[in-house]
Amino acid sequence: MYKLVLIRHGESTWNLENRFTGWTDVDLTPTGVSQAMSAGKLLKAEGWDFDLCYTSVLKRAIHTLWYTLDEMDRTWLPVVKDYRLNERHYGGLQGLNKSETAQKYGDDQVLIWRRSYDTPPPPLAADDPRSERSDRRYADLAPEQIPLTECLKDTVARVLPFWNESIAPSIQSGKRVLIAAHGNSIRALIKYLDNISDEDIVGVNIPNGIPLVYELDADLKPIRHYYLGDAAAAEAAAKAVAQQGKK
Amino acid sequence: MYKLVLIRHGESTWNLENRFTGWTDVDLTPTGVSQAMSAGKLLKAEGWDFDLCYTSVLKRAIHTLWYTLDEMDRTWLPVVKDYRLNERHYGGLQGLNKSETAQKYGDDQVLIWRRSYDTPPPPLAADDPRSERSDRRYADLAPEQIPLTECLKDTVARVLPFWNESIAPSIQSGKRVLIAAHGNSIRALIKYLDNISDEDIVGVNIPNGIPLVYELDADLKPIRHYYLGDAAAAEAAAKAVAQQGKK
Repeated sequence: MYKLVLIRHGESTWNLENRFTGWTDVDLTPTGVSQAMSAGKLLKAEGWDFDLCYTSVLKRAIHTLWYTLDEMDRTWLPVVKDYRLNERHYGGLQGLNKSETAQKYGDDQVLIWRRSYDTPPPPLAADDPRSERSDRRYADLAPEQIPLTECLKDTVARVLPFWNESIAPSIQSGKRVLIAAHGNSIRALIKYLDNISDEDIVGVNIPNGIPLVYELDADLKPIRHYYLGDAAAAEAAAKAVAQQGKK
Repeated sequence: MYKLVLIRHGESTWNLENRFTGWTDVDLTPTGVSQAMSAGKLLKAEGWDFDLCYTSVLKRAIHTLWYTLDEMDRTWLPVVKDYRLNERHYGGLQGLNKSETAQKYGDDQVLIWRRSYDTPPPPLAADDPRSERSDRRYADLAPEQIPLTECLKDTVARVLPFWNESIAPSIQSGKRVLIAAHGNSIRALIKYLDNISDEDIVGVNIPNGIPLVYELDADLKPIRHYYLGDAAAAEAAAKAVAQQGKK
């Protein structure tokens, strides 16, 4: 049996400002730092250890991993950073306030953009200053690999190849894997692992900074999953995430 | 022409306590953090950028790299951590105060242990609690790859294969490389690059946290090298390093 640990990054400045973030590279708040440190303390206290870490190329996830590893005294672990673990691209909504967007377009429209499986938000123009197409960190990618918007289905379509090519073989080679990523890249992964329907996945909310353990069989099929630490706190945190897009 | 940037880690707690450190995994002091941040600010202000970073598996170098990358907004760069960039192993001296050791054994003996090219300090016993042979981070190595002491010649013998196998090909493939490492792993590298004699290399001192640039030709032969920032400050810092082993 294998164990995989997933951590959504701690609270970011735009989580706090209730803005759509997507691929915008905002940092953790002091609360987010504290959440990441708590995750590391919890993992250490419960005797968890790892051989290999994965994260996105966005600093809120990278810093979450760094603070977690610092608390575990595991800064020396190898870390693979890959854009395919990035948050879902939020298109033209990136930078906008979630409540203001809901007031302008209505709760229903925002809920579709946030939670529809296959309806992306309006795209960024390729020459929008918010577009990542001029960002050096994506310079090795073809322009069409750098999204201008994504629905969750699109995110799944880039997360799964990375899972299959890199993460799954690492786990099956016996490496204990820790992934620090984002609400929607984690959702993409657990949709696949738990075979969750397109309808149901949009109701799954991932709390910030709480280690989520997946126990997997030899074929990497989930046996069970659970949050570490206080289960009630994890549930309350997940509910708070679900409320963010409301007026 | 290629450019390679080397940074010795910022001041560590045992630099401050004037203790022999070697492979002991001590962290940066607040001054060391500040030195690392200054290195990042300087690199950013002067327009330096990188594609690939290397560091050791010791947190004073890893944290130096992290703070440097944070200041450059380059946390997303790939980082390779390898024990072959570790500090020289200081054997039985690890943990001892440099001045007290000089009082006990004499300046001359300590200078030999610190600066002789081929005379290692007395080895740790393999079962000494200070030995790294039970440290999980070296679990993939054969016991004989985990030193019980090293002279600089031994350090050169492990740094160079890593240079030849990994760093040099990366540079020649066009990647701009940043290395955050240690006084003696950097010394091992520049001994090779600049073809410095066994006698002269022991007089070369690397200041903490100041970026050292090597300009290299197509065959990776040095054209010139220089410290970034205030040259006089770099020289004074290097002199201070040279003084550490005196009573």
